[in-house]
Amino acid sequence: MDDIFGRQQSILIADVKVDNNPVDIFVNDDGTIGAIGEGVRNEYRGEADLVIDGNGALALPGLVNTHTHAAMSLLRGYADDMILQDWLSQKIWPLEAHLTPADVYWGTKLSCLEMIKTGTVAFNDMYFMMEEAAKAVTEAGIRATLSYGFIDLFDAGKREAECKATENLIRSIRSLNNPRISAAVGPHAIYTVSPDGLKWCAEFAAQEKIGIHIHVSETEKEVTDCVAQHGKPPAPYLDDCGILTPRTVAAHCCWLDEAECTLLGKRGVSASHNPSSNMKLATNRAMPYHWLSAAGANPCLGTDGCASNNNLDMFEEAKTAALLQKFFWNDPTILPAPDALLMAATNGAKALGLPTGKLAVGAPADIILVSTKISCNTPLHNTASNLIYSCSGSAVETTICNGAVLMLEREIPGEMEILAGAAKAAADLVKRAQDAPA
Amino acid sequence: MDDIFGRQQSILIADVKVDNNPVDIFVNDDGTIGAIGEGVRNEYRGEADLVIDGNGALALPGLVNTHTHAAMSLLRGYADDMILQDWLSQKIWPLEAHLTPADVYWGTKLSCLEMIKTGTVAFNDMYFMMEEAAKAVTEAGIRATLSYGFIDLFDAGKREAECKATENLIRSIRSLNNPRISAAVGPHAIYTVSPDGLKWCAEFAAQEKIGIHIHVSETEKEVTDCVAQHGKPPAPYLDDCGILTPRTVAAHCCWLDEAECTLLGKRGVSASHNPSSNMKLATNRAMPYHWLSAAGANPCLGTDGCASNNNLDMFEEAKTAALLQKFFWNDPTILPAPDALLMAATNGAKALGLPTGKLAVGAPADIILVSTKISCNTPLHNTASNLIYSCSGSAVETTICNGAVLMLEREIPGEMEILAGAAKAAADLVKRAQDAPA
Repeated sequence: MDDIFGRQQSILIADVKVDNNPVDIFVNDDGTIGAIGEGVRNEYRGEADLVIDGNGALALPGLVNTHTHAAMSLLRGYADDMILQDWLSQKIWPLEAHLTPADVYWGTKLSCLEMIKTGTVAFNDMYFMMEEAAKAVTEAGIRATLSYGFIDLFDAGKREAECKATENLIRSIRSLNNPRISAAVGPHAIYTVSPDGLKWCAEFAAQEKIGIHIHVSETEKEVTDCVAQHGKPPAPYLDDCGILTPRTVAAHCCWLDEAECTLLGKRGVSASHNPSSNMKLATNRAMPYHWLSAAGANPCLGTDGCASNNNLDMFEEAKTAALLQKFFWNDPTILPAPDALLMAATNGAKALGLPTGKLAVGAPADIILVSTKISCNTPLHNTASNLIYSCSGSAVETTICNGAVLMLEREIPGEMEILAGAAKAAADLVKRAQDAPA
Repeated sequence: MDDIFGRQQSILIADVKVDNNPVDIFVNDDGTIGAIGEGVRNEYRGEADLVIDGNGALALPGLVNTHTHAAMSLLRGYADDMILQDWLSQKIWPLEAHLTPADVYWGTKLSCLEMIKTGTVAFNDMYFMMEEAAKAVTEAGIRATLSYGFIDLFDAGKREAECKATENLIRSIRSLNNPRISAAVGPHAIYTVSPDGLKWCAEFAAQEKIGIHIHVSETEKEVTDCVAQHGKPPAPYLDDCGILTPRTVAAHCCWLDEAECTLLGKRGVSASHNPSSNMKLATNRAMPYHWLSAAGANPCLGTDGCASNNNLDMFEEAKTAALLQKFFWNDPTILPAPDALLMAATNGAKALGLPTGKLAVGAPADIILVSTKISCNTPLHNTASNLIYSCSGSAVETTICNGAVLMLEREIPGEMEILAGAAKAAADLVKRAQDAPA
């Protein structure tokens, strides 16, 4: 049975719903969608290597998580309910100081497992030892855009090292020659990267035609410090450095003002909303979704890392986004369910430059099936409402990425081994940190 | 296999964790907890009618949902993303006008199923045709406190009818003689019930020694109208009517000021926080958890009905509560995970006057088992953090109420029939409403 997993083959997915229409889907053995429609099962039954009975499930494009730090799943629940600075300096950084490449591998394995289990097929990652992350992603079968977190702390020597590390990662990722994995440049934030560092990142990304992944305007302090130092808020400052491009994913964006949103729209930037993380860390403001979308920026969705969320369930995140937008901006009509669903899939694919995020003939088969034989989809008055407000990722039955089946009827090969490996790595990490001389 | 479900029998639950200690639990055949501890399996193995292998799961008291309208699950997703008044007048009320007793039965069946599936063993319900709700609860095997939504719209004639309906429900519930089901008085809110109606409810509840279930201070308009009409905000006005008692569950409580919180504390009122509903409907303020708990009120948790949430997952709701409190009150240390867990179980049981909400020898066996062989509990640095921030109700494997197994390894007998019955009732309801003359 395991040989149906993880490889491209022709697949007939029978009896699913797309946009409320009962259809079948045929996946070619090159990983693309061959046909979608009523009666496709009759036309293609003989041709399929594998037949999946959808049993009336909702077929959706796989979700795209546009901001996370996958390996941080090893730190899930290690420290919560703390002030941001204490949390970082007393808990997260001391533990991260003991992280090994094997830890990054196991943390990323665990995160990929969780993403597959909850319907996410692609993610935008920023961390370090990213060659290990790439190994985990290769094995898991999903898509990732991997960036090394570039932090020069305004030091010229350190900047050189970070440029080198960034160049090395790009080279390493390219050498994998894996169409599911891309590299991006990852300048961490304006408060950790010098102007010269930001400019180098912008130029290097343009030259290499790759993405930029950066934290923008997460806290009020970031904005007030930026205005004090540069005489302008983060967005125009980043624009001066060349960072705002259609290849840029700006994570958080909580404190952008209306003019900054207009600038992001003008530059075609993708703005990754991370509502759970922002609420948990009390950022005190929600990303201005309405200004960003009116300005033509690309609003998308991310979970942030598991140390500050603490899971990777994009269905849960989409609900939290829809609720937080309504609550903070005081209007129950903001971010209706269909738009939240777009953010989670289509807009996310656009943010990462992926040819996915839609179910269309010729597009890569990144398909998830969400059960309708489950209380969260009963009754089924409105598909988008149920998906956003009622379901969690646990309603996903089947996950297919690039034509390969990664989960079928909630079964993922090797799940228990990944859980055990990650649990052991996390326990060993904490022990190393505890045993280390203070 | 089905004969292990839904009846009291002696049960040995082996290999679970309680407060981070590995233990076994023995449940007596009268539905109470007989023993908890290491080695209990050796002592009781021969005596148990049923042995459940916990496989390292976390054993918790079953959760208690302190504010919902269970039958509204039939309206799940029927209308969302609208202004409150339009939502009620254009969508919800016109559909509710066509509800039949059978609809209330099927809606409550569906909700009970969803609660069992997500670890909730007791709920506080307010709706109408509650005899049908009682029938559904009896069959499901969980606990409920049922109240008829008393709405006199300031009309004396209607008040008489509502008093009669309330008295009838109490009589009907008592005649069931089901220890899992209680009745409460359900004055809907200060803007739908006259002062005389509120006073009657308070006196009747005191005389019958039963609970009071009421919506309090959900919107700012409720407060400003109350001040304009009565010269005081809702809490002291309700206190004048005798409504604030230790048997009272006040739902929402978003707009209470600090003095009102002190009054609720003094009167021993339970305040049911409903964060998802409040965010979705843009109430613009979060229940002041910190003032209420400092004042000695009993903060507990509710999902509200599925027309405004849109599910009954108390794990999800507890996370949303912990996030919203931090975000709105701008302090990441407010409502830490252990306190959110208390709200969801122990405080909820106290709110409904149930002898449950804890795992203790002699207490009724209301026990849920949450898997640890799952990504949301991997790694397991901190149990409370994982349960609140990482897990959803889908991590619950086994649900036991009053010593009866209601779900085992996520199996619930008759699940598909309940889903089908509820789906049909919902579709028929919408059709009746559409076919009705305008």
